[in-house]
Amino acid sequence: MSVQRLARHAAAHPLLERYREVRRQTGRLAAPLSPEDCALQSMPDASPAKWHLAHTSWFFETFVLERALPGFEPFRPEFRVLFNSYYVGVGPRHPRPGRGLLSRPSLEEVRAYRASVDERMATLLSRHGDAARELEDVIELGLHHEQQHQELLLTDLKHLFSRNPLFPAYSQPERGKTAIGATTQTGWRGFGEGVREIGHAGPEFAFDNERPRHRVFVAAFEIAERLVTVGEYLAFVEDGGYRRAELWLAEGWDARAAQDWSAPLYWSGGRQFTLQGLRELDAAEPVAHVSYFEADAYARWAGARLPTEAEWETAAAGAPHGGNFLESGRLHPAPGAGQFFGDAWEWTSSAYAPYPGFRSAAGAVGEYNGKFMVNQYVLRGGSCATPASHVRASYRNFFPASARWQFSGIRLARDL
Amino acid sequence: MSVQRLARHAAAHPLLERYREVRRQTGRLAAPLSPEDCALQSMPDASPAKWHLAHTSWFFETFVLERALPGFEPFRPEFRVLFNSYYVGVGPRHPRPGRGLLSRPSLEEVRAYRASVDERMATLLSRHGDAARELEDVIELGLHHEQQHQELLLTDLKHLFSRNPLFPAYSQPERGKTAIGATTQTGWRGFGEGVREIGHAGPEFAFDNERPRHRVFVAAFEIAERLVTVGEYLAFVEDGGYRRAELWLAEGWDARAAQDWSAPLYWSGGRQFTLQGLRELDAAEPVAHVSYFEADAYARWAGARLPTEAEWETAAAGAPHGGNFLESGRLHPAPGAGQFFGDAWEWTSSAYAPYPGFRSAAGAVGEYNGKFMVNQYVLRGGSCATPASHVRASYRNFFPASARWQFSGIRLARDL
Amino acid sequence: MSVQRLARHAAAHPLLERYREVRRQTGRLAAPLSPEDCALQSMPDASPAKWHLAHTSWFFETFVLERALPGFEPFRPEFRVLFNSYYVGVGPRHPRPGRGLLSRPSLEEVRAYRASVDERMATLLSRHGDAARELEDVIELGLHHEQQHQELLLTDLKHLFSRNPLFPAYSQPERGKTAIGATTQTGWRGFGEGVREIGHAGPEFAFDNERPRHRVFVAAFEIAERLVTVGEYLAFVEDGGYRRAELWLAEGWDARAAQDWSAPLYWSGGRQFTLQGLRELDAAEPVAHVSYFEADAYARWAGARLPTEAEWETAAAGAPHGGNFLESGRLHPAPGAGQFFGDAWEWTSSAYAPYPGFRSAAGAVGEYNGKFMVNQYVLRGGSCATPASHVRASYRNFFPASARWQFSGIRLARDL
Amino acid sequence: MSVQRLARHAAAHPLLERYREVRRQTGRLAAPLSPEDCALQSMPDASPAKWHLAHTSWFFETFVLERALPGFEPFRPEFRVLFNSYYVGVGPRHPRPGRGLLSRPSLEEVRAYRASVDERMATLLSRHGDAARELEDVIELGLHHEQQHQELLLTDLKHLFSRNPLFPAYSQPERGKTAIGATTQTGWRGFGEGVREIGHAGPEFAFDNERPRHRVFVAAFEIAERLVTVGEYLAFVEDGGYRRAELWLAEGWDARAAQDWSAPLYWSGGRQFTLQGLRELDAAEPVAHVSYFEADAYARWAGARLPTEAEWETAAAGAPHGGNFLESGRLHPAPGAGQFFGDAWEWTSSAYAPYPGFRSAAGAVGEYNGKFMVNQYVLRGGSCATPASHVRASYRNFFPASARWQFSGIRLARDL
Repeated sequence: MSVQRLARHAAAHPLLERYREVRRQTGRLAAPLSPEDCALQSMPDASPAKWHLAHTSWFFETFVLERALPGFEPFRPEFRVLFNSYYVGVGPRHPRPGRGLLSRPSLEEVRAYRASVDERMATLLSRHGDAARELEDVIELGLHHEQQHQELLLTDLKHLFSRNPLFPAYSQPERGKTAIGATTQTGWRGFGEGVREIGHAGPEFAFDNERPRHRVFVAAFEIAERLVTVGEYLAFVEDGGYRRAELWLAEGWDARAAQDWSAPLYWSGGRQFTLQGLRELDAAEPVAHVSYFEADAYARWAGARLPTEAEWETAAAGAPHGGNFLESGRLHPAPGAGQFFGDAWEWTSSAYAPYPGFRSAAGAVGEYNGKFMVNQYVLRGGSCATPASHVRASYRNFFPASARWQFSGIRLARDL
Repeated sequence: MSVQRLARHAAAHPLLERYREVRRQTGRLAAPLSPEDCALQSMPDASPAKWHLAHTSWFFETFVLERALPGFEPFRPEFRVLFNSYYVGVGPRHPRPGRGLLSRPSLEEVRAYRASVDERMATLLSRHGDAARELEDVIELGLHHEQQHQELLLTDLKHLFSRNPLFPAYSQPERGKTAIGATTQTGWRGFGEGVREIGHAGPEFAFDNERPRHRVFVAAFEIAERLVTVGEYLAFVEDGGYRRAELWLAEGWDARAAQDWSAPLYWSGGRQFTLQGLRELDAAEPVAHVSYFEADAYARWAGARLPTEAEWETAAAGAPHGGNFLESGRLHPAPGAGQFFGDAWEWTSSAYAPYPGFRSAAGAVGEYNGKFMVNQYVLRGGSCATPASHVRASYRNFFPASARWQFSGIRLARDL
Repeated sequence: MSVQRLARHAAAHPLLERYREVRRQTGRLAAPLSPEDCALQSMPDASPAKWHLAHTSWFFETFVLERALPGFEPFRPEFRVLFNSYYVGVGPRHPRPGRGLLSRPSLEEVRAYRASVDERMATLLSRHGDAARELEDVIELGLHHEQQHQELLLTDLKHLFSRNPLFPAYSQPERGKTAIGATTQTGWRGFGEGVREIGHAGPEFAFDNERPRHRVFVAAFEIAERLVTVGEYLAFVEDGGYRRAELWLAEGWDARAAQDWSAPLYWSGGRQFTLQGLRELDAAEPVAHVSYFEADAYARWAGARLPTEAEWETAAAGAPHGGNFLESGRLHPAPGAGQFFGDAWEWTSSAYAPYPGFRSAAGAVGEYNGKFMVNQYVLRGGSCATPASHVRASYRNFFPASARWQFSGIRLARDL
Repeated sequence: MSVQRLARHAAAHPLLERYREVRRQTGRLAAPLSPEDCALQSMPDASPAKWHLAHTSWFFETFVLERALPGFEPFRPEFRVLFNSYYVGVGPRHPRPGRGLLSRPSLEEVRAYRASVDERMATLLSRHGDAARELEDVIELGLHHEQQHQELLLTDLKHLFSRNPLFPAYSQPERGKTAIGATTQTGWRGFGEGVREIGHAGPEFAFDNERPRHRVFVAAFEIAERLVTVGEYLAFVEDGGYRRAELWLAEGWDARAAQDWSAPLYWSGGRQFTLQGLRELDAAEPVAHVSYFEADAYARWAGARLPTEAEWETAAAGAPHGGNFLESGRLHPAPGAGQFFGDAWEWTSSAYAPYPGFRSAAGAVGEYNGKFMVNQYVLRGGSCATPASHVRASYRNFFPASARWQFSGIRLARDL
């Protein structure tokens, strides 16, 4: 389908324009990559870029096109298994650690798969209005799903490139933007005790894990006005932070030893690996790529603690949405004024759990969030690799306490 | 020291009588065991009985006698390392998985170690009142610590015996007490929404993790009047509970496959291994030896959920303390009327986390609880292997979600 | 360098023409592969095709060009580490299991590396005759080395493709060549006892592990006239061969259980995966992709045993060199007349060990063979993926007893 | 049965006296051990002393008493499984790594088991002469089997004690026997090339793996007149022997790194752990507790190599049988005159393989040796823990190349 025809279709359904924009963004992110860059998997937790490209298309094909399009036929039947991530309700799945064994389909064929899904989605959204309307919620979910994978595509690629002794760069550094300098002490903002409301309430899209909005009793607390910086974290490292057991959770202390941590992931010899290649540490940047264990140990060292997610959401509720997101192209935390959104995901001390009254969606889509609510910790606020339109105050990201390959940073809190 | 002299000392300090009683109880529990029974370790999570006997004495020697007794000399200097469990602040530790490599010291020598600690503790508590008074808190802590190890001694031994194809019995079954029968449906008790207080407040002993008492907003809920029974759990098993992914947390589903779970631990071929050897399942008994993952899957299957620890404590706050504890000698959950205490620890859906305002004690003793507050889930109420005086409504036990070798069972809750 | 100029150089040194032919063959083998096919690594034992292409060039650059070419500069200094396989004497090495993490250098850049090495080798061989003559031995070694990697490129690729549920084909099946049919019983050829000579003696190239030629006492034996066929091996499978412990070496019996073997590698549901994709088993083909353990168990089942390498070489000494080699393009064992060369490597019962008087070459090249002489078994005769000019009667291939991804088959022997 | 009655029986069958002596020796070796010492297992390769005591009795019960004794009943049916080591033909086996989980049967019960087997063996050998005569071969095998386990009981115990930070001593050091001193250079003894005969031929007992006697061509060689000493090995260590890759087989180099070897097993900080506890190194003692990899690296460093087993047997054929065996009570290699027997097993470069014409015995006893003939290396000559009557010139011991917990040492050889 030509771009012109696609544009005409856009009139037919308000979602089509957004669909096109999100999908194009994915394409732009993958554009600088070679077929080889897209095919490799550097650890079981990460996926090849090609897999992200295909899986996000599989989502629309499986949960939208198959249900709604008359005479539906799959682009290729084997893809149903190959690109199913973890939806047991859909059927068998190619095992996650084997995603890096698929030299076929080629990147070219995966791009054709994307185009085919796009064309059929356009047909659906322009010609089959009733069917599309019934599936608006799942299409919306699919777009937010694709935005999540845009971020993962970048963080997984960063991990892959970091394992290559040639330290390839994904993009060129922006000139003049790196300010190697000192930071002043953070300010703090206080909140009195009381019953607060958190969670998403309105009609706009939110993931099921953000609902229902509900009451929480929150004791008086104060929260830092900005993220912990590289300079502050360096002081912790230089003060023996990684050698002082009393600062650490026991499981973190063991993880540190087993995986030989002595600094955030991607730091090495006073330098750090970024999506623009190896470069100097910048003391003014927010620190990123720390595990929950490191964030917790840092907070203890600093005489503070991590905020709960209720505290975080209370503080962030009215905060401006500005920040350093995917769209800036920087793809690295930036020094500067404090904000609650962008730059680096902020570890909270809250275990990822269902909100009171939580219900997952019916069917396989219900596997999206609920089944991961154990042994993970909530992160808030988005990062420099998150699309700006993807995140909000009630947004709950979650990773295991030992995960470090996301742009995960630290904001401190204290009892009042 | 003769029993007569020890009795005379008891007058000197109110703690001495309790000290003697707790220590004697430990001795009684180990009495039926051979030196070999006491020396073996069946998995890294479990410890040999001999190690429990020594470590609980090490606690008093290290945290009390060394600080308070004039002219203190250790019973044997090597024991400082050998029987230190996880107190990094005290110094090096013999590695946990190597506890089963210690044929020496012999059981006899460990008993002499216990006697020496007892004699010195009696001296301290009778002759050195001032020093003892300063350490009353840590002595009290040591007694509760020893009670915890009484339970672990039994659960670790049960695990060891279960791995022996001869299926040894620790004790004889009590006659006439096993009622193989049906159970009626559980009743439910409802609670309205509101700000509740949980945690320990009074001057009596409680672990640091139970403090401070604090407010929590709890939505309206109802909670089952008794534990889930073997009969009810059997219905879950027979309904394909272990083969239906939609009932499980993703990590639980994987643990089930990796460890080949198809029933609670110790069930095999319609029978179960108990501390009295292999015997038939009794449908009326509370089910035990299930992981958090199994408890959660069962609850989902039953159209309910696990209670949060705030809900549990709200419901248990005024409940009678009666129940089937260690002292009954049954050492297995008993069929019968519902109660919140005894029989089986009850998994809650709450991740183990510090209460708002939590502070650990200063020094090495501060490692007791706080450093484990990650990736564990809270259990409440005590079990058939818990000393009756050890547990209370605010008591927080905690284990990883995959742990099954404790007497861990299920109480259901539902939104109202 | 243009082909014309390369051709002119060929006159300069007799090795140049052979060099060009071997290198071109490698290029031809990689020609059908996509960049993604060339980048993936399916297990630590296997390497990506791109790595084979680069490493074989690294060999010439490191052991020839660097030593002989005036003003030598490396194509890219990082490649010295990246494409060093196991030569500790040359310096650090990128770890083997990480060969599949290198999306860069791209396939294109690796091809440029090859071209650069080829050009410089042509310069050396045409203009620097004296330097080249001194290195003739190591150039010759490099060509045989490259031929070994031609075979590995194919067997590693076969393993990769076999892990892809799409079962890609490397090449098209040749028409009319598959003869699904019965086989007649093998004949046997007898040899009397006596002191035999084995090993390589002449001036032609041979690896150091084939030397020195030496005397061995060999008892009377007979050896099968052809390889064991798929049909014969199927009879072993159907007779419970994989379930009868008495047929197996203890370590093989355990490997069978741990890796869930019930047939040769690549067999599945009555079909087999080949470099031409999935196809039916052909009873008349020699069986391949069996481990030493399976070969040994089969032989015991058949009332025979594997030959020693001395027996094999005694029997093969005068045998014709014809057979199904890489050049046939079949890339799979072919049914047909018996021969000692081609089709499938033949496991011998001989542990890989130095011949009496063995000396490795001086320097890093001495690491080529000698340091692997432990816990491996000798295979003889070459396979359908071996270049015809690469193999000879004294040639000793070697793999661990559990290896199955080579074209490894079975020839029986018996005491006389 | 009283000792007196047992003595009377001895007259009945010439084997009875030997049976009694071997069995008593086992009892003497276990006498100093506590029940706990006998119950623990320090690694999967090692077995608890109690298991050795029971398994050697199981051998006679299963292979002799059950076949020959009218009205046979097993001492306890469960022992058939519990104490079967690896005889698949006899039926199921308790898994090897679980031997250390058996606190029951108690040591006392195992001693009763031994006594019961002894009494029944005495009955068989005194009253049922015909049945006994048919089983003479297997009884003889059982006695040699028990002697093997006498040595393993000691080496397994040494390993267990070495893992205990208290470093217990099994026996008291003999006074005045430790000579800390220099050693003179070894002499060499040469042998010309020729066809040699090795293997056992006569009617006396030998294991099946020593037969048949057969011809081997052996090139001219010379062999050291004594074992490598601690002093010589120290020179290798101090010359960077553990840091120089060029001295090692590749697999050994990796094992060294993975297991962090920098000296023989049981050396630590200039001292060594022995069955008499920790003590100083003695430069004049033969070195022991080295792996095949270390022996091979040492030999390469010394400009020599390990002998083949044919060379060793050729040289040892006429050597005197004197040496430092189990009966000396020293239980450690002794400084002194060279001999081929006792002190430390001598690694040969020969992979453990069947001799030409080898046949295993029929039935389960045939599993004794043959099924282990892969990936192991032959050791010759016996050690300070071997009963003197157990070893001979044709005796083939075998262990994997990485094994270090046996008394395994080094004798050098060279081409002539």
